[in-house]
Formats: sequence, structure tokens, C-alpha cells
Amino acid sequence: MDLQYALELIGTFFFAISGALALQGKEADWFAAAFTGFLTAIGGGTLRDVLLGSYPLVWIGDINFLYAIILGVIVTFILYGFVSRLKRTFMLFDTVGIAFFTILGVEKALSVGVRPEIAAIMGMFTAIMGGVIRDTLTNELPVIFRKEIYATACLAGAICYLSLRLFEIDRNVNLLISIGVIVVIRLLAVKFRLSLPKLK
Amino acid sequence: MDLQYALELIGTFFFAISGALALQGKEADWFAAAFTGFLTAIGGGTLRDVLLGSYPLVWIGDINFLYAIILGVIVTFILYGFVSRLKRTFMLFDTVGIAFFTILGVEKALSVGVRPEIAAIMGMFTAIMGGVIRDTLTNELPVIFRKEIYATACLAGAICYLSLRLFEIDRNVNLLISIGVIVVIRLLAVKFRLSLPKLK
Amino acid sequence: MDLQYALELIGTFFFAISGALALQGKEADWFAAAFTGFLTAIGGGTLRDVLLGSYPLVWIGDINFLYAIILGVIVTFILYGFVSRLKRTFMLFDTVGIAFFTILGVEKALSVGVRPEIAAIMGMFTAIMGGVIRDTLTNELPVIFRKEIYATACLAGAICYLSLRLFEIDRNVNLLISIGVIVVIRLLAVKFRLSLPKLK
Repeated sequence: MDLQYALELIGTFFFAISGALALQGKEADWFAAAFTGFLTAIGGGTLRDVLLGSYPLVWIGDINFLYAIILGVIVTFILYGFVSRLKRTFMLFDTVGIAFFTILGVEKALSVGVRPEIAAIMGMFTAIMGGVIRDTLTNELPVIFRKEIYATACLAGAICYLSLRLFEIDRNVNLLISIGVIVVIRLLAVKFRLSLPKLK
Repeated sequence: MDLQYALELIGTFFFAISGALALQGKEADWFAAAFTGFLTAIGGGTLRDVLLGSYPLVWIGDINFLYAIILGVIVTFILYGFVSRLKRTFMLFDTVGIAFFTILGVEKALSVGVRPEIAAIMGMFTAIMGGVIRDTLTNELPVIFRKEIYATACLAGAICYLSLRLFEIDRNVNLLISIGVIVVIRLLAVKFRLSLPKLK
Repeated sequence: MDLQYALELIGTFFFAISGALALQGKEADWFAAAFTGFLTAIGGGTLRDVLLGSYPLVWIGDINFLYAIILGVIVTFILYGFVSRLKRTFMLFDTVGIAFFTILGVEKALSVGVRPEIAAIMGMFTAIMGGVIRDTLTNELPVIFRKEIYATACLAGAICYLSLRLFEIDRNVNLLISIGVIVVIRLLAVKFRLSLPKLK
């Protein structure tokens, strides 16, 4: 499916940018930014496939993912001052990106025969673990621990997808609805500054 | 062996609680607590099996482990103020838990044909790496680096098990003795505040 | 090739020392130093092989690597005050070590059939990821993010090796040249305090 493949590459490109921007304000050099962009982009899918024992890893088997990452890093470097100010735009891309990667991750997990509960976790991992690795490397408490409903939105979308699948809804329809669920939950959370209750 | 299986699930349940409690005092939400509980519970065994190339991972192949984790997280949430005060009780459960997981980890490693030295390391990893992942995620110096004899006790128990195995001691007897070695070393260390020498 | 095998063991030995020294000044005990030495020594190669799905891992299949690590840790403990002052000497060993591991990592990746671009990344990972894991565990911003040209030198050497390989240069000649490229870039960078531009 060509559209899906294009979206995967575009998502990888944006994840690379988000990682390459993560070291702003730290004493780090350009290599560190590129390296962090790379790990952020591959982290979630790589963890999912290593846990599932599914080889070769996507970015090792298909070189286009590496090129998408390199392009993302180069764009970040050239337009550094510019892209680092586009916070709002990035939030939008990020939201669509995590929504899309969640559902792809669920499908990938189902395709190797795991149970739906595990597939839901793998979907969420695909979307968020790149960011968790990025934050751990750069010595931050992972942003998913702090910010408005994020990973929870991915989990909700994954569960939505798996539920509709039980009713044998058409895959493309299901994809649209489930991605929509994630995007809507996330955007509402940002708009109204919703977050889960904090620990005492 | 039904008792062993039950103990594995119970150990997973307690590891999930210990992880879910780890973010106390940090600016984190309930999702972060659940997520950390999950990674703490699966971390050690998952690392062991990924290093050994032993698939499917235990919690992916058997859904009951996921349910044990979810239960642990829910119990933590409901009884939050209560369980977070039970430090002493938890230390006891934790001690029995790491002892048990160490020996199971050793056996699992031996079952895929590695040498005893490697099996000892894998046993220790099974017991402690969930906690190391938990502490790294939450930006702490791993607690095993600081506290009274802990990982060392696991390593001692693993070596004890492997030594007795050489003499073809009955497995159940060996299990009891080796788990006992870990528990006794750990409890003595806590009681008398023993620790290995600090670095200068 | 006996020389190569000896060099691999020696490199592992020195990586273990560098890891065992990493906790100086932190509140950590001797076990923590040994543990960090172990993870530093195996980290890069292990990550490479897990990503490639290449089992068994080197140090699991060949016990001599574990012995080299244990020896490195013991030497560190016995000569602690002494080796911790040998910063300059270590920098030299470290430079030769990462150069050598980079090229071995590239060859290992090529041997399982990945593309050269991926092999270059795997070579760099082999050399640097042990240190990244060490720094993440000990709560530091990875040193490769901060210090003089380091990972970049590895990447340059990997690309050099892969380029010369295209021209079917003799492997041993290529090995020498590519290792030399890494060593020279790194030493010049240290000598003249060269680093990549910092992020704004």
C-alpha cells in the first residue's frame, strides 16, 4: 500500500526532527543532535520488533528509512532557528505521527500472532518509546510521564482499533476512526490542558 | 510445576507494585506509574531472554503475566497511601522475589545451553535489571549501585545454585538452599547495614 | 586470525576498565563499578548483535570475553588509585580500542548481509554504545554528546573502510588505513581541542 509506506517514511522524518531538536539548551554538538534524532526515529519500532523477535528490523531491511532520518536531521540543521520555533506545527505533526505509528504497531504485532492485549502495548510502544529513549539519553524525566494525555491516547486508539476489528469493520475505515480517536483525545488534552491525576 | 508458576506470577505482581511506587515525589501522573510498574516487572526477564535470543518472551507468550502486572498497578492505585507506607513489608517481599527470580533466571539460561558463568549473570540480571531500568527511566542512580548488598546477594545465590548442581543435589533442595542464601545475605545486610566498600 | 582475536579480548579488557572507573566521585560501591565495567564492555557489541538478530551474542558464545572483563575489573580494583590517574594513557588505549571495534563492527554487520550504510552505523554503535549505556546508567549526559570529535571519527573510519572495500583493497591494508583514520582524527581533535559546532 503506497500511501501507507509514504506515511511511514514521513512519520520517521518528523520523529528524526523531534529528536534532533531535543538537545536544545544542553551542552551538546551537532553530532549529538543527529544521533538523538536517529535513535528517536527508530527507537519505538526497533524495541517493538526486538521484543517480538521480528527480524530484520524495518530500518535495517529497508534503507529508505535511514534516508528519511538523514533528511530530517539535515533539514533540522539548515532550518534550525526556524524549526525550533514551530512548536505548534510540530505538535500537530507529532500527534498525527504517534496516532499513525500506534495503529501500524498494533497491526505489526497482530501479524506475528500475539494476543490483542500485547498488540495494544506494542502499538503504544511503537509510538512512544523513541521519545522515552530520547529523554532518557538526554537525562530528562520522560516527557510522557509529565505532559498532557499522550501515551494514554495511543493506548485508547489501540484498544479502539482492536475492538472495531472484532466486529470485522473494514480495515481502512477502522484505521481512520482509530487514528481519529488518538488525534482528537490528544488535541483536546492539549487545548484544555487535560492531564491524568498527578501522584500525590 | 504449579507452585513455581504461581510464585512467578506473584513475583511479577510485586515487582509491578515496586515500579508503580517508584515515581513518588516526582512530577508524574498515574499513567507514568503504571508504565514504570510494567517495565519494572518485565525488564529483567525480558533483557535475559533478548540476550539469550529466547523467543517468545515470557510475558508475550503467556498473557497471565500481563494480568498480574495490571493487578499490581491497580492495587497500588487503590491502596496508594497504604502500600507506600509498607516499606518494611515490601523489603521482605522484594527480597524473596529477587531470590526466586535469580534462580529461575539461572535455570532458564542453563536450559538454552549457556555456560554456568553466563547463567549466573543471567540469573542476577533477571532479578535486578527491572529495577535498573526503573531507576534509569526515573533519572536516579540505580539503587543497586548504592544500597546494602543486593545484586551481590543474587550473584552469591546463583553461584551457590550452580555449585550444588555440580554435586547433583536434588533440584528442589538446591532451590530452597540457594533462595535461602540470597534471602539470608540480604536480610543480614539490611539488619546490620552492611554494604560493599564505597569507591573513594 | 589469532592477532584479531587477541585484540578483541584486549579491547574488551580496556573497555571494562573504563567502565569500572566511570563511577568515581559518585556514591557507589565496588559492585556498581564491576557492573558498570561489564555493561560498558559488552554494550556496543551486544546492541549491534541484538539489532542484527545475530545469535549467540559474542560474550555468551565465548567465555573468554567474560574473563577479560573480570580481569579488567580486578585490575581496576587492585590498582585503583594508580589507573584512575592514567588519564592520558587511557585516552590512547581508548582511541585504539574504538578504532578497532568500529571496523570489526562494520565487518560483522556486512557478514550478515546488511547494506554498507547500515554497516557504518553498526560499526559506530559497536565502538560507542557501551559508553553511552555507561553514561546513561550513571546519570550523565553521554560523553559522546560533549567531547571532542569521537563518534564522528568512528563514523569517518567506517566510511573510509567501506569506500576502500569498494575498490577491493586488500583487507589487512584497509584495516590498517581505516583504523589509522580514526586514531588520527581523534588524536588531532584531542590535541587541538577540536569539536563539532555546539548547538545554539
